Amino acid sequence: MNDPRIHFDLTDRAAALRERVAAFMDAHVYPNEDRYHREVADGDRWQPVAVIEELKARAKADGLWNLFLPESDLGAGLTNAEYAPLCELMGRVLWAPEVFNCSAPDTGNMEVLVRYGTPEQKAQWLEPLLRGEIRSAFAMTEPLVASSDATNIESSIVRDGDEYVINGRKWWTSGANDPRCKIFVFMGKSNPEAERHRQQAMILVPRDTPGVRILRHLPVLGFDDAPHGHAEIVFDNVRVPAANMLLGEGRGFEIAQGRLGPGRIHHCMRLIGLAERALDILCERSLARVAFGRPIADQTVTQERIANARIAIDQTRLLVMDAARKMDAFGNKLALREIAMIKVAAPNMACEVIDMAIQACGGYGMQDRFLAHAYAAARSLRIADGPDEVHRNQIAKLELARFKAAR
Amino acid sequence: MNDPRIHFDLTDRAAALRERVAAFMDAHVYPNEDRYHREVADGDRWQPVAVIEELKARAKADGLWNLFLPESDLGAGLTNAEYAPLCELMGRVLWAPEVFNCSAPDTGNMEVLVRYGTPEQKAQWLEPLLRGEIRSAFAMTEPLVASSDATNIESSIVRDGDEYVINGRKWWTSGANDPRCKIFVFMGKSNPEAERHRQQAMILVPRDTPGVRILRHLPVLGFDDAPHGHAEIVFDNVRVPAANMLLGEGRGFEIAQGRLGPGRIHHCMRLIGLAERALDILCERSLARVAFGRPIADQTVTQERIANARIAIDQTRLLVMDAARKMDAFGNKLALREIAMIKVAAPNMACEVIDMAIQACGGYGMQDRFLAHAYAAARSLRIADGPDEVHRNQIAKLELARFKAAR
Amino acid sequence: MNDPRIHFDLTDRAAALRERVAAFMDAHVYPNEDRYHREVADGDRWQPVAVIEELKARAKADGLWNLFLPESDLGAGLTNAEYAPLCELMGRVLWAPEVFNCSAPDTGNMEVLVRYGTPEQKAQWLEPLLRGEIRSAFAMTEPLVASSDATNIESSIVRDGDEYVINGRKWWTSGANDPRCKIFVFMGKSNPEAERHRQQAMILVPRDTPGVRILRHLPVLGFDDAPHGHAEIVFDNVRVPAANMLLGEGRGFEIAQGRLGPGRIHHCMRLIGLAERALDILCERSLARVAFGRPIADQTVTQERIANARIAIDQTRLLVMDAARKMDAFGNKLALREIAMIKVAAPNMACEVIDMAIQACGGYGMQDRFLAHAYAAARSLRIADGPDEVHRNQIAKLELARFKAAR
Amino acid sequence: MNDPRIHFDLTDRAAALRERVAAFMDAHVYPNEDRYHREVADGDRWQPVAVIEELKARAKADGLWNLFLPESDLGAGLTNAEYAPLCELMGRVLWAPEVFNCSAPDTGNMEVLVRYGTPEQKAQWLEPLLRGEIRSAFAMTEPLVASSDATNIESSIVRDGDEYVINGRKWWTSGANDPRCKIFVFMGKSNPEAERHRQQAMILVPRDTPGVRILRHLPVLGFDDAPHGHAEIVFDNVRVPAANMLLGEGRGFEIAQGRLGPGRIHHCMRLIGLAERALDILCERSLARVAFGRPIADQTVTQERIANARIAIDQTRLLVMDAARKMDAFGNKLALREIAMIKVAAPNMACEVIDMAIQACGGYGMQDRFLAHAYAAARSLRIADGPDEVHRNQIAKLELARFKAAR
Repeated sequence: MNDPRIHFDLTDRAAALRERVAAFMDAHVYPNEDRYHREVADGDRWQPVAVIEELKARAKADGLWNLFLPESDLGAGLTNAEYAPLCELMGRVLWAPEVFNCSAPDTGNMEVLVRYGTPEQKAQWLEPLLRGEIRSAFAMTEPLVASSDATNIESSIVRDGDEYVINGRKWWTSGANDPRCKIFVFMGKSNPEAERHRQQAMILVPRDTPGVRILRHLPVLGFDDAPHGHAEIVFDNVRVPAANMLLGEGRGFEIAQGRLGPGRIHHCMRLIGLAERALDILCERSLARVAFGRPIADQTVTQERIANARIAIDQTRLLVMDAARKMDAFGNKLALREIAMIKVAAPNMACEVIDMAIQACGGYGMQDRFLAHAYAAARSLRIADGPDEVHRNQIAKLELARFKAAR
Repeated sequence: MNDPRIHFDLTDRAAALRERVAAFMDAHVYPNEDRYHREVADGDRWQPVAVIEELKARAKADGLWNLFLPESDLGAGLTNAEYAPLCELMGRVLWAPEVFNCSAPDTGNMEVLVRYGTPEQKAQWLEPLLRGEIRSAFAMTEPLVASSDATNIESSIVRDGDEYVINGRKWWTSGANDPRCKIFVFMGKSNPEAERHRQQAMILVPRDTPGVRILRHLPVLGFDDAPHGHAEIVFDNVRVPAANMLLGEGRGFEIAQGRLGPGRIHHCMRLIGLAERALDILCERSLARVAFGRPIADQTVTQERIANARIAIDQTRLLVMDAARKMDAFGNKLALREIAMIKVAAPNMACEVIDMAIQACGGYGMQDRFLAHAYAAARSLRIADGPDEVHRNQIAKLELARFKAAR
Repeated sequence: MNDPRIHFDLTDRAAALRERVAAFMDAHVYPNEDRYHREVADGDRWQPVAVIEELKARAKADGLWNLFLPESDLGAGLTNAEYAPLCELMGRVLWAPEVFNCSAPDTGNMEVLVRYGTPEQKAQWLEPLLRGEIRSAFAMTEPLVASSDATNIESSIVRDGDEYVINGRKWWTSGANDPRCKIFVFMGKSNPEAERHRQQAMILVPRDTPGVRILRHLPVLGFDDAPHGHAEIVFDNVRVPAANMLLGEGRGFEIAQGRLGPGRIHHCMRLIGLAERALDILCERSLARVAFGRPIADQTVTQERIANARIAIDQTRLLVMDAARKMDAFGNKLALREIAMIKVAAPNMACEVIDMAIQACGGYGMQDRFLAHAYAAARSLRIADGPDEVHRNQIAKLELARFKAAR
Repeated sequence: MNDPRIHFDLTDRAAALRERVAAFMDAHVYPNEDRYHREVADGDRWQPVAVIEELKARAKADGLWNLFLPESDLGAGLTNAEYAPLCELMGRVLWAPEVFNCSAPDTGNMEVLVRYGTPEQKAQWLEPLLRGEIRSAFAMTEPLVASSDATNIESSIVRDGDEYVINGRKWWTSGANDPRCKIFVFMGKSNPEAERHRQQAMILVPRDTPGVRILRHLPVLGFDDAPHGHAEIVFDNVRVPAANMLLGEGRGFEIAQGRLGPGRIHHCMRLIGLAERALDILCERSLARVAFGRPIADQTVTQERIANARIAIDQTRLLVMDAARKMDAFGNKLALREIAMIKVAAPNMACEVIDMAIQACGGYGMQDRFLAHAYAAARSLRIADGPDEVHRNQIAKLELARFKAAR
């Protein structure tokens, strides 16, 4: 991780920021990991955690705030390739991104508001989000249908005078359980009769609107991810002003497309951070753990795991950085294949590396808070935002297209 | 599962019992799964669950009780190969074995008492265990050392007059958190100067003995397994009567050897039950889940998963049954290699099959109680009772021995 | 291999035969492996090899002849489960099955003639085949179409007076290059307008019939498999007497079904023999090969390979034996799923085990005649007789059928 | 392959050369593949092939010659990162690198002579090699010992007056069978009593020196690689002038170190070219091959293979390019870990991708010259130049060193 050769070709600005984020992690995040877990365990699991708020203030004071935003007047003005290595560092602790106001789904929602929000929408929702005063959620996935196929979406957004009436059931709406969450970006069908990619809309739904009912939180392989959590929510004749529409009826896909690319880079770089940390643990424990007279790090079977982990991590980091560079160079649309590729590669790699770390740590690994939670987080990303299978089909179709054209 | 050809070569007695266990599962266990989870969720997580006690009474009344015991006057008198298919059926629900008084670690502890207990030990502990009135725990694994190498064990059992004084720290002592747990089988060094395999002893430690302090429960990949749980326990100058010694000082290994074989058959067959159920879910959901216009069961990629799962399950079942038959035919000792093989094969297979089911179920799979918990249970068995790596080394050494002899 | 516990539950008759085949292999086959290779290398590659003919005479004299035939008046009258372990032994040397007159495709062709041949067909072709005087080939697969889907078959068999006129192109017709090969079992469409499974026929085509033209031999991953080989053949207006038809027009599928099951058991058991031998080599070489001061057999990474190979082989053997037992108990048709399963499992397992052996042997492994050829043979069986993918689909469909019925 | 975004960040010079090499491949190499195979098959397998000599003249005339040499007065003066993409293109046809005078082992031998040769050595051997008039071989690996551990090397180089006397047995000396091969770079022990890494020397041995006896050629998984081939050679009291010593006694390791890095980049980039071509074949055939009513390219199982191949290739290319850039930026020594990583990653990836292509092509894939030969070539590189296991150990040790330092 500290190897300066990993990201040896960063711009000076990005390299300097990377140093500063690394220093902040060392000084303020890692030393507070136990405190964080104590606060979650001891208090009401579904209330914000004090240490986070403290560290947010500090990160903001240090100018390590909203680094994800490519707009330099609001954030750091970094390219994807410049921001990605910061994301990797933050990803080494599951709750760290929030400290820098760089956590999903707020980052994606803020980007949507920056690009497509009206001045009024920005004043009301974007500004408090940028200040880290409120949080937001993204209500897209629906239970019982395969949401990776967007034509399956059944929620409706129907104009009625000056309002839209919203009905539907969503799940995996992450962060909705957090009391600081004040606003949902909701996706549904505004134009069910239009052609496939013009049926959807995105609209802003304040969380306290009548008819919004949070049914339950969904565990991720046994983790409730409190206080963030993942909610199942019913929207029952929810009425919002027509002015809450984003961009316009039927333009939900267009927004989704723009939102997707950077978000996937972020997710994937965070996974690389997770995997790096798991490999650190694997190395440290295998040096410390003695069996049959010597550290298990001396066993070639352990060395094979370590080498395979190192290769897998580095290959995936390079793939994500390549996707980031291509997004910067050619735009999100031309980097479609690369983004699908990292969405498959990164979570699978992270699962494998974390699993190897768990195995090498034995009984310690089974109960270790970081490893187990990291595994669940990585595993969920093989499904969230479209399962591996859907992305692989897309990659294959792009690949086959080269040859179909020639036939 | 209902395919009569799976275990087509059972004895009549075993086939009849298998029918009865299957019928009991259908009538009483599956229909109570929701109730079980509600009771655990709603009450004090660390108290016994009412539905279990009800069903225990019913299973006992139906004569489906203590089926694991090869002694016909106490249990069903089944061979390993006859009992194994019952174990598979019970394994389809994580909490079902307890209903039949066939759950770990009580089964192993009861077997130890049957074989090695004095009449007094039997009267005091075996009989209430056989009646399902109390539960027990097995305190062997220690934190910070690789317990797969038994010479690492650091706990001490020191004679002092008519008593033994016990000191040490144990973890992964499953079931110790349950208030019904009254007795520990404790493993430690009684003869630290003796040769490697004569240093250990096993001794009975009542849970309420002064100096026994349960520090915390350990989660398994995020699951607390309440009310059973896995405890970290300090034994601090714990004194028990000398009569609590099992078999004799320095004979702990001897006991462990006898305890191991059947226990591994049971674990592995339960894993096969888990995997079968996960495959059922995979099939059912992939028939029901529609993406891009048709059930995902129609996709060859889904079919590949199903076929690979079926092959993996059947191969592993045959391997476990073969080990059971060899244990019956040649004794535990000659089946050493086979037992090591199933200990590697079954948990790995179960993890893979369950993971495939999670993936095919998408967001449903991530939050599904059964699948997530089954995954954690299977994953923990790649580490508990010796990690894969230790068993693989043992298998290889037995294999290489054939050729070393010839050189 | 010599472990008496591997097939510990054979009938006495089968166990005794197994002893005798093992003794024959030890006495006559292994000691002649170098001679075989020298004879192939030094002479005309496409002529029969003298050592084979010598050993055939000896095996026949010893009563180890036509063991595959379930009919006791012609062969040994063994069940599938009794014959399978013999097949495993013979499979340890690629050319050994022919020594016992038990090699593909003759075994399948002889079975077809036994079951469906007319007295005249039997006298002319079956008898010399049973005596090992001639050989035969099976002309089914066609180039350029996926033959796993039999409706793709394009060859035609058209009645014209007292004759059938045969046209088509076949490839992978194994053994056709051997001058001893005198007769082809040819599959083509006799009734192209009938329903899907009644379009095909099988007919006997003497190899020297005018219009039969062998175009070339096909290498298998670089091996020409001389003098057996695999031919691409054109059938150009080939005329044979109407009496050469097997069973009747439109009944080719029916014959194929009966032919398939036992043939797959044989192939798979031979692969297990190959894999066992590769594991022997892996063990022997890793004990002998010293790197960094000690035999590589001492490295846990080598031990992991050995253990995984042992587990994989044993699981696959059990699966094949289970399929054999079910074929004996329930008939070929009810063992359909089991046969598809072994067809996937065995070649994949063999490829993996042989590949591990090659790797552990280093430069020796790359050039070793046995390992390289065994790999090519195993690899080809992931494609021949239907690729893995087709069998997996079939397994999945049988699995899903259980649940479709219930919906 | 033609995707301009693959190597989107090349220098202009490198991009222009890449265009020219691609155009040469299109115009002269692919169209001559059949001719090449015919010439090898029809003539004396161990004589040079006419088409190669013709194309060499053309490449030299076109200025596409000795591109590998970083010295601009002798070659193209490219950095590793600039040359690597050319290597990928040439690698798409197994025999193409020779056309550009860029084939192993000549490239490595020429680099050694450029760096360490005396003026006389250069005049006699380097110049004809640079002109493509002669070829060379590298005699390092020895049979029966694990050559990855260089202390195992047993050959001796002993000073005797004005000469050195060389004794030893080598194998896998590639290219020694080619009549154009005139010179061997021979590695042996000149100082067996020195410390471990100062025992070796490299010396020039003309192929026609008395005492050099080529025993046999070694097949690679069944391929003889004629006319290049891989020889087993005895050096029996071979005497060469003392002036043939390279750099000095005991400095063989030093030379080997310098030789290694670039050679591995070349091998790995060629493997990426092979894999890309295999993926092209996989795509083309799966679009053309119809089973059960539609092209197998429509099956999600095929799409999964294609996507996984694309991801694996791109990840590996990025890893190799990263290693090349680090070699350029930091020198061979600091890129040690990266070079070990690509040596593991690239051949494994290529084997997997080629194997997937074989499988998707069915019977066509088994006999396809390119795929089978490419598989053998890629497979051999998991062993040649040190087996995977040795490189993985080295990677792990570098990884663990980070933590050992901190303990």
